[in-house]
Amino acid sequence: MGENSGTGVAFTRSPATGEKALYGEYLMNAQGEDVVAGIRTPHPISMLKEEMPETYEEFGRVASLLEKHYRDMQDLEFTIEHGRLYMLQTRSGKRTAAAAVKAAVDMVGEGLISKEEAITRVEAAQIDQLLHPRIDPNSKTEVIAKGLPASPGAATGKVVFDADDAAAKAKDGGKVILVRTETTPDDIHGIVAAQGILTSRGGMTSHAAVVARGMGKPCVCGCEALLINYNAKLFRAGAVEVKEGDLISIDGTTGSVILGEVKMIAPELSDEFRILLDWADQIRRLGVRANADTPLDAERSRQFGAEGVGLCRTEHMFMASDRLPIVHEMIMSETIEERTVALDKLLPMQQGDFYGILKAMDGLPVTIRLLDPPLHEFLPNTEELAIEIAKLRLTNGDPGEIERKDAILRRARQLHEFNPMLGHRGCRLGVTHPEIYAMQVRAIIQATAQLLHEGYHPETEIMIPVVMSAIELKLLRTQCEEVLQSVEQETGVHLEIPIGTMIELPRACVTADEIGKVSDFFSFGTNDLTQTTLGFSRDDAEGKFIPAYIEKKILANNPFAVLDRDGVGKLVKMACELGRSVSPEIKLGICGEHGGDPNSIEFFHLTGLTYVSCSPFRVPVARLAAAQAVLRKCIAIEE
Amino acid sequence: MGENSGTGVAFTRSPATGEKALYGEYLMNAQGEDVVAGIRTPHPISMLKEEMPETYEEFGRVASLLEKHYRDMQDLEFTIEHGRLYMLQTRSGKRTAAAAVKAAVDMVGEGLISKEEAITRVEAAQIDQLLHPRIDPNSKTEVIAKGLPASPGAATGKVVFDADDAAAKAKDGGKVILVRTETTPDDIHGIVAAQGILTSRGGMTSHAAVVARGMGKPCVCGCEALLINYNAKLFRAGAVEVKEGDLISIDGTTGSVILGEVKMIAPELSDEFRILLDWADQIRRLGVRANADTPLDAERSRQFGAEGVGLCRTEHMFMASDRLPIVHEMIMSETIEERTVALDKLLPMQQGDFYGILKAMDGLPVTIRLLDPPLHEFLPNTEELAIEIAKLRLTNGDPGEIERKDAILRRARQLHEFNPMLGHRGCRLGVTHPEIYAMQVRAIIQATAQLLHEGYHPETEIMIPVVMSAIELKLLRTQCEEVLQSVEQETGVHLEIPIGTMIELPRACVTADEIGKVSDFFSFGTNDLTQTTLGFSRDDAEGKFIPAYIEKKILANNPFAVLDRDGVGKLVKMACELGRSVSPEIKLGICGEHGGDPNSIEFFHLTGLTYVSCSPFRVPVARLAAAQAVLRKCIAIEE
Repeated sequence: MGENSGTGVAFTRSPATGEKALYGEYLMNAQGEDVVAGIRTPHPISMLKEEMPETYEEFGRVASLLEKHYRDMQDLEFTIEHGRLYMLQTRSGKRTAAAAVKAAVDMVGEGLISKEEAITRVEAAQIDQLLHPRIDPNSKTEVIAKGLPASPGAATGKVVFDADDAAAKAKDGGKVILVRTETTPDDIHGIVAAQGILTSRGGMTSHAAVVARGMGKPCVCGCEALLINYNAKLFRAGAVEVKEGDLISIDGTTGSVILGEVKMIAPELSDEFRILLDWADQIRRLGVRANADTPLDAERSRQFGAEGVGLCRTEHMFMASDRLPIVHEMIMSETIEERTVALDKLLPMQQGDFYGILKAMDGLPVTIRLLDPPLHEFLPNTEELAIEIAKLRLTNGDPGEIERKDAILRRARQLHEFNPMLGHRGCRLGVTHPEIYAMQVRAIIQATAQLLHEGYHPETEIMIPVVMSAIELKLLRTQCEEVLQSVEQETGVHLEIPIGTMIELPRACVTADEIGKVSDFFSFGTNDLTQTTLGFSRDDAEGKFIPAYIEKKILANNPFAVLDRDGVGKLVKMACELGRSVSPEIKLGICGEHGGDPNSIEFFHLTGLTYVSCSPFRVPVARLAAAQAVLRKCIAIEE
Repeated sequence: MGENSGTGVAFTRSPATGEKALYGEYLMNAQGEDVVAGIRTPHPISMLKEEMPETYEEFGRVASLLEKHYRDMQDLEFTIEHGRLYMLQTRSGKRTAAAAVKAAVDMVGEGLISKEEAITRVEAAQIDQLLHPRIDPNSKTEVIAKGLPASPGAATGKVVFDADDAAAKAKDGGKVILVRTETTPDDIHGIVAAQGILTSRGGMTSHAAVVARGMGKPCVCGCEALLINYNAKLFRAGAVEVKEGDLISIDGTTGSVILGEVKMIAPELSDEFRILLDWADQIRRLGVRANADTPLDAERSRQFGAEGVGLCRTEHMFMASDRLPIVHEMIMSETIEERTVALDKLLPMQQGDFYGILKAMDGLPVTIRLLDPPLHEFLPNTEELAIEIAKLRLTNGDPGEIERKDAILRRARQLHEFNPMLGHRGCRLGVTHPEIYAMQVRAIIQATAQLLHEGYHPETEIMIPVVMSAIELKLLRTQCEEVLQSVEQETGVHLEIPIGTMIELPRACVTADEIGKVSDFFSFGTNDLTQTTLGFSRDDAEGKFIPAYIEKKILANNPFAVLDRDGVGKLVKMACELGRSVSPEIKLGICGEHGGDPNSIEFFHLTGLTYVSCSPFRVPVARLAAAQAVLRKCIAIEE
């Protein structure tokens, strides 16, 4: 107290950007608590330079000393009494992801810490923030309200006010933003279905905020300006009225609520981030590939440093609007001749798809997974169709149309399954309908031959999904090789194309020695492996009981986000050991969502896998986490 | 050739009944082939006694000698030339199940073979024939046609002509008989759904016959008298016209087709059969219990020699028509108070159920499984409901009714799951809705206390389904124990009630050491364990691709009928070892359908399980197979 006395907090580097300079605030002739409570207006630290230049200079020396001593950026609490500087407290400074990266890289440059230490300074999960799509700052946006930036990322969708509506619309592929005053556990299925969440109440630790962050989904909370009218199904933000079904966008990184659709841009890596990731690449043992289904995704993966495409899914190629009618033809076919006509139409389209991806990833391995989803996913919803037909009949609709829809309904019902995830999908389709896989394999191999001919260097790999036994795999492998030999003969080109398998069923894990004898590589599909090992249907469990399980501490984490080491991990380990026992050099990859999770990546490193593969936006996270796994000395079961 | 010359075949015991006497036929002055081709009418062997008494006596001596030498009943081919007997060929005689049993037991009595050998003489799978319900011979039956007895057992149902119709009607609990000229693989889902199959064409190795036998389902084939008119949806048998929806019965043991419903009687065990099973009981190590849900089933199980009830399912108790409305109340409840009102109504009903079963099995262990199926199974079908509502709306139906049905539809949709088998079922319900399990446990324990009070000796065990982790089990176990302690306090009676777990998920197998620390026993649910290990939904796989897999030799057997030793078996073995590593005396049972399959039973014996539990009608098969497993010296991977 008294003259030239005050209290303040300071940071040796910006907690927002990591920029090296003194940041902070102080209040002269005031108690410390007042600074925090905001009763009077604090001065920025830079003002201290003018007011008490010697104290300021001393501050700078002390701050530098403390940084050097603790070898990290510091949060400082200080007091100045009668011109004398007293440091009250110092600790490692809180920082955003961007700040963490810059500070770490700068400190290596300053000789304060090593590259290895720099890598451990950045939380892999934190840098996810840097990798979400954000709103193009050059685009014109009409910001109609602002709330708390509760979970980063931007999203666009049609407004829905109800979790059931969100789930229903999403089921048909619709993109929605769930708008509520707040959310409760009963809304989980709506949160899961939506692109983003917007609430008018609640803070950074509200239900919506916590759940959205957990799912990596954009969320703006506590947007008090919103006045929601559930009955009228609209909300007001100032003068603007937004109705159910209108398009809005939210930016969970800034808290903005925007009318209409916005242009989003892919995230970029800062220079420091690139440098840090280069160091990570030198340290890590695990390879990092990306899951990419399109040339664009493949290109993006390369930019993020992926060493290949660990999983190219082929299903969406069948879903595209120009292919879907042909796929319908294929499914409605009663004979193999009819089906072949449809497949012949699809072949050149598929070949074009594969040509594009292999070209984008030229020189790097691309592992293409043969068709996986159950056939019924390509047909219309039976309930809606049945209602349509009932209405047509009641209103004396056109008999031809009724007959046509009825035929589709009958076929859709035939294909209906009780548990589609465990039904006639994946390689089972390849066994009962070999012509479908034969078409895909031909398309893949012809695309490869085409690129070779044009002077490129495709590194194609073929992967068979949902395999449960060596005999099953051998049968399908033989069918693939027959097509390969045909194309080799037709083109006169010799092709080396590894044929491997997903390991995504418990039986595949426990018989991996047998499977390893007929497989060129394994790729763990940990999503399905988690579903079958735990007996948890992901689409049902996440909405209905995983939150309760976490709340009651039966599960520490969502097993679909963080690999269940004791259960699923044990089977993965077993499969690796069995596979290597018959094929010591066999490549072992993982392409489930866990491939982008730091905790799981550590497990994969310890288990000796060859590479992880994850979505393009998570490739930087994986590169960093793989390096951290090397540096961490002991197995961290709990984080 | 010449006088007193002829050829014939003979059996040392009746191939139909096993009765010890000479049976057979011969033809004088004829070639052997003619006997088989049936050109002339052969004489019964007994006539030889009159025609050539010395030859007949010699025959008897030789037949006896051959039986003693080979120590088994013989099929003999012989020729007589000029009064001299020549034995052309002898081999072990073909026999029905009943004949096998009687012959084996008689031969022990005659000192020809040992008890152990007798047990190996009877095919366990074969005696299944003796255990199917058959038509009460005293009942009046109108037999309208006769075909081939392709698969044993009797069945009653409404006539359907189409596999889709069969499946649709069965889905609502309807019992149907599928009637076709013949069946093809496309009809599998209808065969699965029907009570029995009737075809007008095809023989004992036709598709319908083979598939029905594989499923243990009654089937009459090649009933040429049937004239089927698919368009008119009816068939004619002589003067009788039978329309779709009419009730018929078939007897797959005799080949009869009968109009209307018939009275069926449970199979009984012959004296010889009882003797043989007693010997089996002395030899086998495995215990044999039964899966029984009602006092009647429990009683039947005791009669067949079960040593307890290995699995009492509690779901059907909720399905009964007097309970279903209350169960609907429970599901539609929005608050725990509402739900408790419904549960309080169910409690005394449940207690009565358990009282009945425990009393019927007095003195023997009864393992009661807490509620398992997903809640949506108790609500109406959403598609039908949606169509009803659409129709009501279109025809201006009563708004109150529309509102009511809409509420049910909304709730049913909320409960809808994508993969119900892996959804919110089993103990997950117990975690999110502890009040449901609490009611069941209270009902079980109160019933036990009641019986003790009345001087009985109930041996109640409580089993928790779909467990995937030790923490999960511990939480639920603790909840059960709290109820137990409450009832102990209320009744003043001390109760020893083991609490154990189903092991039916791969994760439970690989973490069985942890689970074993909090579980009094394991019971392998091999149905669900097979579904999750192989990633095969049974309801979908059996209809859609298991037949192809067997045809292409990817699978040797239907894994739901015969345990997959390499996959599922490996996990079972692992779980046994892990469980015993922490709890050496832990009881290990199995209650899936494999518990009644001889091949699987051998595996369970070799793996060291404590007991198997199967449906009451398979208990005799299990007793015999368990003894055979002891006697078989090496692991038979292929039968």
